[in-house]
Amino acid sequence: MTTHNHERLLSWLQDAYAMEQEAETMMAAMASRIEHYPELRTRIEQHIEETRQQASQVAACIEQLGGSLPTAKSTIAKGMAAIHAAGNAMMSDEVAKGIGISYAFEHMEIATYRALVVAARRVGQDEVERVCQAILEQEQAMADWLFERQPQLIEAFLEREQADLQAKR
Amino acid sequence: MTTHNHERLLSWLQDAYAMEQEAETMMAAMASRIEHYPELRTRIEQHIEETRQQASQVAACIEQLGGSLPTAKSTIAKGMAAIHAAGNAMMSDEVAKGIGISYAFEHMEIATYRALVVAARRVGQDEVERVCQAILEQEQAMADWLFERQPQLIEAFLEREQADLQAKR
Repeated sequence: MTTHNHERLLSWLQDAYAMEQEAETMMAAMASRIEHYPELRTRIEQHIEETRQQASQVAACIEQLGGSLPTAKSTIAKGMAAIHAAGNAMMSDEVAKGIGISYAFEHMEIATYRALVVAARRVGQDEVERVCQAILEQEQAMADWLFERQPQLIEAFLEREQADLQAKR
Repeated sequence: MTTHNHERLLSWLQDAYAMEQEAETMMAAMASRIEHYPELRTRIEQHIEETRQQASQVAACIEQLGGSLPTAKSTIAKGMAAIHAAGNAMMSDEVAKGIGISYAFEHMEIATYRALVVAARRVGQDEVERVCQAILEQEQAMADWLFERQPQLIEAFLEREQADLQAKR
């Protein structure tokens, strides 16, 4: 039997669950601070809702494999959220840095779910594979949105800054 | 004159320079630890060389705009490197997590250089725009490589783990 691979799949699902918890906290903090970029705020709020559903779906996969939900937050995600929070407090270009950090975070999630798809397939966990593939598509859509909108958001930031308007939020 | 935008361009170049310093440290640590994934190690080593050249090019842009090179490391990049280092010490799936973190880091760099291209264009700094566009393409190529190879690297990791061979490095 594929014991090691089964255990690894479970531990990666637990990491993903912890990551989604941190993602929700981080995005909620970011969205609440945005004032002048309503389209960005709305898209992040929509992704927070998706993130909550993803956490539930991942939790169901963990239970299906006989595992328990992690209580500790993900070390990696916690670190990224701490960086983000530090950025918020310090940076005069908060929204610009926030977009970059969010874009990076989405790609950590993409890498996580792509690895999970491979791991689930190896042990024939079709339902887990299907769930992870569906979440992967949502993360990719969020990353694509950030990629498409970043130039105009940066333009808007620089425009406000040039006009001596508050630009960072 | 576009004073604020000129200053912002300079401060983003300084952030990018600090980020490249941290990227080099992080990738060198990662590459030195890889034992069983020679293709990954080679590609990272190649990107370390690119990163050194990028730092020089960004330094030249900073000097051209009359700025000084930052001595402190980038807060964001330093945080990501710390997460990465913590990961190295703790994780039984070090290489798998390292790929995910590297993939995320490349996308932070991509977002950084895309913002720089917009900012340089706004103030008519054609040479800075050209340099940032060229670096952006190298970052994208590294991200694309990681994306393409991740499934087979994850397969190789799971294969080794299943066979009770050392997999993490």
